[in-house]
Amino acid sequence: QHYTDAFAQVNPLRKVPALKDGDFTLAESVAILLYLSRKYKAPDHWYPQDLQARARVDEYLSWQHTALRSCCTRVMWQKLMFPVAMGQPVPPETLAATLAELDRCLQMLEDKFLQDQAFLTGPHISVADLVAITELMHPVSAGCQVFESRPRLAAWRQRVEAAVGKDLFQEAHEVVLKAKDMPPVDATVKEKLKHSVQALLK
Amino acid sequence: QHYTDAFAQVNPLRKVPALKDGDFTLAESVAILLYLSRKYKAPDHWYPQDLQARARVDEYLSWQHTALRSCCTRVMWQKLMFPVAMGQPVPPETLAATLAELDRCLQMLEDKFLQDQAFLTGPHISVADLVAITELMHPVSAGCQVFESRPRLAAWRQRVEAAVGKDLFQEAHEVVLKAKDMPPVDATVKEKLKHSVQALLK
Repeated sequence: QHYTDAFAQVNPLRKVPALKDGDFTLAESVAILLYLSRKYKAPDHWYPQDLQARARVDEYLSWQHTALRSCCTRVMWQKLMFPVAMGQPVPPETLAATLAELDRCLQMLEDKFLQDQAFLTGPHISVADLVAITELMHPVSAGCQVFESRPRLAAWRQRVEAAVGKDLFQEAHEVVLKAKDMPPVDATVKEKLKHSVQALLK
Repeated sequence: QHYTDAFAQVNPLRKVPALKDGDFTLAESVAILLYLSRKYKAPDHWYPQDLQARARVDEYLSWQHTALRSCCTRVMWQKLMFPVAMGQPVPPETLAATLAELDRCLQMLEDKFLQDQAFLTGPHISVADLVAITELMHPVSAGCQVFESRPRLAAWRQRVEAAVGKDLFQEAHEVVLKAKDMPPVDATVKEKLKHSVQALLK
């Protein structure tokens, strides 16, 4: 759907998510989250006013693009979307390298961000936790044991679920967790996707 | 220098840039820029209070990580650092694919962000322009003709230089523009770098 011309009117980058709020359109999930939190005056802890606390959230949001986000997406594609949905096998050494990178990113998530805190950027839940948990659901959906050998991260996941509420937490991840049951994509879609997803094979 | 233990005290991610402000340490250039603009109450245009104008800046800052930033860094490494400083040849088809990606990113920078505006996110200079120009100096330093065939982008570059001031603009890019004259790295540094930079060969 996001390769249609109608969608390009909302987001010329032709990527999801995208927001349309009246005449105003906006791409990029992080920008959208910050826009919504400001527009609806979300409670301070989501994106704190305090100079240093906010900088910690910005630091996470910035780091994750080329680290956790990048490798969670590639794990999902290499382990699930290419072989199952696209019918395109992935070289085992490529997948192995991506999984090793995921492991390094998870270690950094624990050691540099979570540490001994309740949430990734401090004692309260922030948009950083939302961005992180939604990324982590991609390798989980592809069958990776992200939390099983990482008790600190598993406890954090429980705290995020409790803070968000069990129902909303499930609803937010419903689609991604069902990806393994999706039917193979048809030839037309495969042709459209071909070029744009090849970079995810690296 | 950023692989030393002393630097890891400031930034456990062992990456530059990093900021140390009293006891407070912070990584990630975007987070550092926003921190400094808030701490020193920079004029509004750098990161506007207006809801939609700020969202435009956030959108750019978010987009560039996996787009312009990622390919500018890879161009610099594949065209200059690997072959010249590291003495490691880069497969021509790898470099060609990266240069094609740079071209697509530049096109998006013009079509989706700059459009017919004076600056990337609107009529005034913002942190988005600073982040963009510093990234673009990497392929420029590696000998790419980034602005030559793109008059709209070249005019924007002139406006950024004028807004920042010629001297500061030059000073900010002095090191990166001298990269081609740096001596080959010695064996110890090469060994330290080896693993961390291999991803830039993709």
